[in-house]
Amino acid sequence: MLVIDEERIFEEIKRRKAKRVVMNAPDGLLNKVHNLSKKLERELGIEVIIVAEPSYGSCDTVDEEALKLNADVAFHIGHKISLPFLGKRTVFIDAYDDVSFKDVLEKALPLIKDFKRIGLCTISQHIHSLKEAKEFLEKMGKEVVIGKGKGQLLDGQIFGCEFYPVYSIKDEVDIFLFLGQSRFHAIGVALSTNKPTLMLDPYLKEVEDISPLVDERYKRAILSIYKALDAKNFGIIIGLKEGQLSLLRALQLKEKIKKFGRDVSLIALREVKDDRLLLFKDIEVFIQTACPRISLDDYHEKLVLSVPQAEALIALWEGKKIDDFLLKSHWL
Amino acid sequence: MLVIDEERIFEEIKRRKAKRVVMNAPDGLLNKVHNLSKKLERELGIEVIIVAEPSYGSCDTVDEEALKLNADVAFHIGHKISLPFLGKRTVFIDAYDDVSFKDVLEKALPLIKDFKRIGLCTISQHIHSLKEAKEFLEKMGKEVVIGKGKGQLLDGQIFGCEFYPVYSIKDEVDIFLFLGQSRFHAIGVALSTNKPTLMLDPYLKEVEDISPLVDERYKRAILSIYKALDAKNFGIIIGLKEGQLSLLRALQLKEKIKKFGRDVSLIALREVKDDRLLLFKDIEVFIQTACPRISLDDYHEKLVLSVPQAEALIALWEGKKIDDFLLKSHWL
Repeated sequence: MLVIDEERIFEEIKRRKAKRVVMNAPDGLLNKVHNLSKKLERELGIEVIIVAEPSYGSCDTVDEEALKLNADVAFHIGHKISLPFLGKRTVFIDAYDDVSFKDVLEKALPLIKDFKRIGLCTISQHIHSLKEAKEFLEKMGKEVVIGKGKGQLLDGQIFGCEFYPVYSIKDEVDIFLFLGQSRFHAIGVALSTNKPTLMLDPYLKEVEDISPLVDERYKRAILSIYKALDAKNFGIIIGLKEGQLSLLRALQLKEKIKKFGRDVSLIALREVKDDRLLLFKDIEVFIQTACPRISLDDYHEKLVLSVPQAEALIALWEGKKIDDFLLKSHWL
Repeated sequence: MLVIDEERIFEEIKRRKAKRVVMNAPDGLLNKVHNLSKKLERELGIEVIIVAEPSYGSCDTVDEEALKLNADVAFHIGHKISLPFLGKRTVFIDAYDDVSFKDVLEKALPLIKDFKRIGLCTISQHIHSLKEAKEFLEKMGKEVVIGKGKGQLLDGQIFGCEFYPVYSIKDEVDIFLFLGQSRFHAIGVALSTNKPTLMLDPYLKEVEDISPLVDERYKRAILSIYKALDAKNFGIIIGLKEGQLSLLRALQLKEKIKKFGRDVSLIALREVKDDRLLLFKDIEVFIQTACPRISLDDYHEKLVLSVPQAEALIALWEGKKIDDFLLKSHWL
């Protein structure tokens, strides 16, 4: 069960003498946040506004909405990062999962018997479980490595788009164990490191080898690049979410692609969805700079490339090889 | 066919020595805007970014996006209002429709033979056709009234949410003729004035009596109010779009509703859609302050009241009558 760090919210409100706060969270936490908002209003006499737009990651902070709604603080709940604060108003609030990995770790043992050096990684809500998992595996005679954090990432943590703590240790380990029920993240680990990766699901207590999914994603990603080779009309999408805005990257890509005689238009969007993209009848290929996973995981009617795919496309035009285009510490 | 006032765009760019501009428009105009963006880049050497979020009305300006994208001007295309500019960067650009109302006006004559005093109204793209229609009807022996504009509305113009030019003359006319292919707007005229209203569709050259639709909308709207009478848990939605933000109204409604012993939470959203609303399991009734038409025209699984419906609900709690709750010059 996910437990929101309410204590810190109460502390921050009191410390800042906040009168109005906004809160946002992933969909799965919204009802808890709704109850919490009532508690805060009742006990502290403040005004709470829940920003109910989709929140997929720590890129979905709502500093701008807080400003707009004249709020003193923006509590972004459920995506812990290495920083306690960001922007002028955002406070990151942890929601940790109290589920145990004990059973699923035991279940994983026979599957990793041929691997000596184990890399461990996870996402925000299970960070605290890394230590327990490491100790267990070491007791079982394994060498366990947890990669150092970097930027917004804590030790052993990965995002959907950033993988420093696994990328940096990929040559020191034989296999990665991803702690959590998220194929999405486990696939990211495997694609960015090119290492065997198992997902340890603490809820179903199942160990899943995600290789087949990784193969599918990789093939689809590379096929999209080749399909885009002869296109003439490109649309580069700039994400409007505050943590996804990458104007400079979009402008750089535009210039590069124009050099190859292509027509390039710039389009700004909040959510990159087909219903908006398909309105542009003349555009054959979209390149979106908002979030790599929109291209790698979602299905689209037209080609929608991520930044690493776009860079691979340019490399192909330049006559270079592109095999390792996803083997990177981040895909932004 | 809709014709964008390109000349004014060229003029404004030159006058402001703009280097980067953003443009947004209703979906139906996006391909024209896309072509225009290429022309502007080619001929003026500037950078154009198309903001491709949905644009339903003059509330969907993108001043904030222009700031975010470091653009000098935000051209909002297709919703002419009484002001040429708004905010720090927004320039309203007209897209007028060159279709003729001659045929459909003739077709309307037998249907209005029992009405002496005719009120004329329309939307942005047909404003220039009001004069021609007035002259034609006067030649046919009718008394024709075009209501004065107010606020952002030009003479004879209506929005989906504001109706001054028809509301102010409702007692001087026997019937309204709405020029345009938009049941949505014609329904607004009828509901806000309680007058017979015909829609004159210049494309299909059909005259439509929209009374049945008006009855349906009115009944549905009033039924929703009565259904909300005994609810305990309310959610008040604040629209995050720059032209829909109504924080004060939301706060006022919250205080009023709390006085009747109800639980009220504040929720901020950009697009008010069921997939977001249904996440809040405990909320029985939503009141949204973003756009009245979201409540009156769209279908929702839970109750989603507009501001006039919410005010009617409060009136009912106070023991007052509410028959005329939509008979207003605006629904905001």
